[in-house]
Amino acid sequence: MNDQNLMEKIVSLAKRRGFVFPGSEIYGGLAGTFDYGPYGVMLKENIERLWLQMFRDGRDDMYGVDATILMNPRVWEASGHVSGFSDPLVECEKCKRRFRADHLEDAATCPECGGKLGEARQFNMMFKTHAGAMEDESATVYLRPETAGGIFMNYKNVMDALHPKLPFGIAQIGKAFRNEIAPRDFIFRLRELSQMEVEYFVKPSEWQQAFEEWRRMMHSFAEAIGLPSGMVHELEVGDSDRAHYSKRTIDFEFDYPFGRKELWGLAYRTDFDLSAHEKGSGASLVYLDEETKEKFIPHVIEPSLGVDRTLLAVLASAYREDELGGETRTYLALAPKIAPVKAMVSPLLKNKPELVLKAREVREVFKKVHPAIAWDDNGNIGKRYRRQDEIGTPFCITIDFDTLGENPDLIDTVTLRHRDTGEQERLTIADAAERIREAIS
Amino acid sequence: MNDQNLMEKIVSLAKRRGFVFPGSEIYGGLAGTFDYGPYGVMLKENIERLWLQMFRDGRDDMYGVDATILMNPRVWEASGHVSGFSDPLVECEKCKRRFRADHLEDAATCPECGGKLGEARQFNMMFKTHAGAMEDESATVYLRPETAGGIFMNYKNVMDALHPKLPFGIAQIGKAFRNEIAPRDFIFRLRELSQMEVEYFVKPSEWQQAFEEWRRMMHSFAEAIGLPSGMVHELEVGDSDRAHYSKRTIDFEFDYPFGRKELWGLAYRTDFDLSAHEKGSGASLVYLDEETKEKFIPHVIEPSLGVDRTLLAVLASAYREDELGGETRTYLALAPKIAPVKAMVSPLLKNKPELVLKAREVREVFKKVHPAIAWDDNGNIGKRYRRQDEIGTPFCITIDFDTLGENPDLIDTVTLRHRDTGEQERLTIADAAERIREAIS
Repeated sequence: MNDQNLMEKIVSLAKRRGFVFPGSEIYGGLAGTFDYGPYGVMLKENIERLWLQMFRDGRDDMYGVDATILMNPRVWEASGHVSGFSDPLVECEKCKRRFRADHLEDAATCPECGGKLGEARQFNMMFKTHAGAMEDESATVYLRPETAGGIFMNYKNVMDALHPKLPFGIAQIGKAFRNEIAPRDFIFRLRELSQMEVEYFVKPSEWQQAFEEWRRMMHSFAEAIGLPSGMVHELEVGDSDRAHYSKRTIDFEFDYPFGRKELWGLAYRTDFDLSAHEKGSGASLVYLDEETKEKFIPHVIEPSLGVDRTLLAVLASAYREDELGGETRTYLALAPKIAPVKAMVSPLLKNKPELVLKAREVREVFKKVHPAIAWDDNGNIGKRYRRQDEIGTPFCITIDFDTLGENPDLIDTVTLRHRDTGEQERLTIADAAERIREAIS
Repeated sequence: MNDQNLMEKIVSLAKRRGFVFPGSEIYGGLAGTFDYGPYGVMLKENIERLWLQMFRDGRDDMYGVDATILMNPRVWEASGHVSGFSDPLVECEKCKRRFRADHLEDAATCPECGGKLGEARQFNMMFKTHAGAMEDESATVYLRPETAGGIFMNYKNVMDALHPKLPFGIAQIGKAFRNEIAPRDFIFRLRELSQMEVEYFVKPSEWQQAFEEWRRMMHSFAEAIGLPSGMVHELEVGDSDRAHYSKRTIDFEFDYPFGRKELWGLAYRTDFDLSAHEKGSGASLVYLDEETKEKFIPHVIEPSLGVDRTLLAVLASAYREDELGGETRTYLALAPKIAPVKAMVSPLLKNKPELVLKAREVREVFKKVHPAIAWDDNGNIGKRYRRQDEIGTPFCITIDFDTLGENPDLIDTVTLRHRDTGEQERLTIADAAERIREAIS
């Protein structure tokens, strides 16, 4: 299967099975927006919760915040986004269409109509709106282009309320908005996206240690969500390509079907952000080291992860086609920890009340292991398996007459089917529950 | 304590202890925006997770979606928001300030400068922005004023992907934006807010049953998050006050310190929304009943809950002052299920390594019950208790020399202090763990 083909198949499965739908689809959509459907929401929540566990809740040096998308515009003046968060744009003098200057193969003529292209101009990618009843410049407010700004805004209040000692970090999951001229590649380049970001504050002399620690943590997270290590690559960003304030940046790239592209970033941002906000706001963002009595502005390590790109990497690396029982089948080899549904329970026949009753009992037993245990009694058992394969459910459990004791040796045993191999085994209900527990822990 | 006073105390505690901070505060703020600090995030997540459990995951008839904030503008034309989501506004002819016409005591003169007020005009409360590289009308996009629109947008795709049978519902948590002319009352009337909404689709003849079911569920949720039933009031909205498309609406009101105000809403919206979107988009949103072969547009019951208002109700009803040990103390009597921290573990003395070591071990034991077990060895034990009281931690556990066996009868026992009474009891480590488990289950 070629890569274009693979991408089409992922987009198709994502829609067909309720992972990702085009935004506002019945109205013809809105470029750069996608909505998560029922299984997409569950997968996204599982990825986010695992991130929270590893990057925030499992550590004593991390604090959460949830800042607003609309912020005082001076935040983005100080950060440099008002002047610098832009792409070069050219306009066709004939058809008036606009294009990214750095994406054009031919910089002279319009790829749509062949007309003459004008000079490249900088186009700011922040969405603008107006707060309050006046539509004048004074009330211009931006939709945040990254969640990091909301973290820096709360640095002082977190310090004043909780008095954390360096090193410590602030974590946030939230939406960010970028008015991309050419959104593309499904949920890779979006106009509305979600980010999981940490700003980790350190003494200037200790940045390397923290950088290495988060670098390892990012690899651990890649492993935890099931990304094959061979598909995740570090790119050490060279001096000339780094933002001017960054002393070191590693891009974590992923082998997407459309090429090797940036998945996550890890940057040493020095004291650029806090110093800029101290200057911009006049507030003191200085840290007092109680031991040495030194005063300084903490330096920052930033592990930044896009939720949607992560989810796409998960889908792309989990997508499989094989032959099973003489037919081609499609399945998602999702890590059980993040699979939307952990197991599906099914009575062999829908019209036998005793099977249905027993299957419902078994489902309740499994629900004590994890709440995401699905029920499916629709269509024949083969169809049920194929549905679950496509949403990446690791186990299917079938209750049959032997479960009820038709063969007395098999009473209270069930059939457990493994997603990746299609193999089935006969187990007691308790052992099947233990299998589920082991797989997701 | 009078109500004005109580409100000031809640706002002060929320900031001092890291629950809620003014948005963009170091830049002078942005009206109508507040950020959640570390304990606010935890409290908010606990409220949201409990809602997900009760309204979505604990039921087989519910599906989740996560739709974008930016949608095709035709969504809001069809829903009536472009023409009708507005407040009456008057402008002072002298100072040019603008006011809500329906909030003015004197409709003729400006409350700020005494100038003459102009005619009332309708002011649309949706935030507007522009998507793409063109700033013309065709690219105008709104920030969604309610999450419900995102649910209706996904009705067809959820039907096509998962084939649910009526009755079923779609649930979503997300942000909504309203350009309030006069945001006020802390996190009660915000310009950027979060909503937890369900659209529950039913056969027209079965709306009453579903309405009653969700009405009970909302009361159960109020109880689960610890809102005293005496502070939650149903208001049956009369014919003349209901939206024209609603055949029945109950407002759930709460006794906030600033008065009895709307907390949640439950509305029977008939087939208004799906019919409007069918007409607006041309897509078929008809449901085929496989048994009766009838085709119709489902009717909708909508339980709608504001996250921020809920969190404020929780804080306001949990805020307490009493006398303890001859001093006034403040505490939050939060339901253990939603308290940010379930228990705090503390060594009696910070400079005794054997106490610290044992206390760390005990904390690990409790962490198996719940991850939100705090550590505090800062300042004297009385101060530690007061800090935890103010963030609403139900239990404080202290490890002392008897825990280590100084009194052999007391080896492996700890002191467990109850937040609401300040009373302490001596328990084995295992019994203390069990207390925590019971309280949060």
